[in-house]
Amino acid sequence: MNETIKLLQNHRSVRFFEDKPLSEEQIKAIVVSAQAASTSSFIQAYSIIGVTDQDKKDQLAALAGGQEYVAKNGHFFVFCADLHRHELIGELEKKDVLPSIESTEKFMVALIDAALAAQNAAIAAESMGLGICYIGGIRNNLDAVSQLLKTPKRVIPLFGMTVGYPQKENEQKPRLPFEHIYHENEYNQDTEAYKKQLSIFDEIISEYYQERTDGKRSDTWTGQMAQMLEKQTRMYMKEFVKKQGFDLR
Amino acid sequence: MNETIKLLQNHRSVRFFEDKPLSEEQIKAIVVSAQAASTSSFIQAYSIIGVTDQDKKDQLAALAGGQEYVAKNGHFFVFCADLHRHELIGELEKKDVLPSIESTEKFMVALIDAALAAQNAAIAAESMGLGICYIGGIRNNLDAVSQLLKTPKRVIPLFGMTVGYPQKENEQKPRLPFEHIYHENEYNQDTEAYKKQLSIFDEIISEYYQERTDGKRSDTWTGQMAQMLEKQTRMYMKEFVKKQGFDLR
Repeated sequence: MNETIKLLQNHRSVRFFEDKPLSEEQIKAIVVSAQAASTSSFIQAYSIIGVTDQDKKDQLAALAGGQEYVAKNGHFFVFCADLHRHELIGELEKKDVLPSIESTEKFMVALIDAALAAQNAAIAAESMGLGICYIGGIRNNLDAVSQLLKTPKRVIPLFGMTVGYPQKENEQKPRLPFEHIYHENEYNQDTEAYKKQLSIFDEIISEYYQERTDGKRSDTWTGQMAQMLEKQTRMYMKEFVKKQGFDLR
Repeated sequence: MNETIKLLQNHRSVRFFEDKPLSEEQIKAIVVSAQAASTSSFIQAYSIIGVTDQDKKDQLAALAGGQEYVAKNGHFFVFCADLHRHELIGELEKKDVLPSIESTEKFMVALIDAALAAQNAAIAAESMGLGICYIGGIRNNLDAVSQLLKTPKRVIPLFGMTVGYPQKENEQKPRLPFEHIYHENEYNQDTEAYKKQLSIFDEIISEYYQERTDGKRSDTWTGQMAQMLEKQTRMYMKEFVKKQGFDLR
């Protein structure tokens, strides 16, 4: 196993950071690495906003549900789906690009592009001994986040990423069984096998929590997921996405 | 600059591979690395299908628009957004998870989850000296692709990834100027500065093509993008996504 694969497989979220900002050089290495990721037909449909202003970070932390590590870290990135520049290009080149830009397909392209770039950023940061945590919590309140970051139409802040010098590392969380995620040649629709894999994973997760909480907590994964998914959260998203000019045509 | 950052920043797509399949060990290293990526609230909303059957690969190559490297490579992966297991979990745990599963928010979560995993897979493969190319072309024809891979409801094949031993490496493509992608504290809405960055990039890209085609081709990036976006492609996507149970509520 080479060093990069070790690094990838050793990932864990970091939520407590030393009070030490990233250097310009580190930020540049992270962003340039993000930009080097694959992009659908060269479209480069994303932007990255680095937040250094402490007042803005505090506001983002509150908007993301009071997550302190959004405010206290070495740097805070926000990854955005971005077709703003492509709309401008349509105007400059006098081509009607709007039906395309407003399609469900291009919404998907922009999300995937942004996520590929973000994961490269995460790996670049971790390779320098920094810790990271993705912050989906900014989607709790995208109207306010967009106003704070002054994002124009055709831009959607998708998630944040806290980066910094780890003060405390989390334990690594187990993952679903390999066979449950990976299928060969066709999707395995054997529901009984599927249920069995889930129950094996439930045991692993239950033990994981018991060990880490002195027996106080013993949730299963399926229990956790059902509880989470029963709650209808961020149901405003469709409306927001459309308002931002991703019309999901 | 450490070795991992060098690797990330040295990425280029590979479209010609030696006729040599990946080993089980390599496939496992790639998938386990993919699984180690961050996942939104532990949801793990993706699956990976590895295609080894040559007839299936040939069909996928045709469906993706006749891309030969979909058929000829060391391994072909398909990354899928997947909430199928979560629907099953709702049934098992007797919770109504459908409004949540069918929301625009969870569609975004599944896409981002799948893309983060895929980029880890790409990095793992490249770290072993393999080459990769993402294949968005499978979205040309998702009805047929889904049938071929027997994906159930709540699963959407998002993109493929060819992996293998590089026979020929592409040149590395330039990226948009750093300042165009990276904003500090707020999105830079200075349209004149934005246009200037685009025209600088147009010159870079135009030179890039001229050098590589002995002057036969000299497209600008904005020209390329306008031409591509003027075409309305994959406009069936919304309908397909909804049919698969991602209702974009």
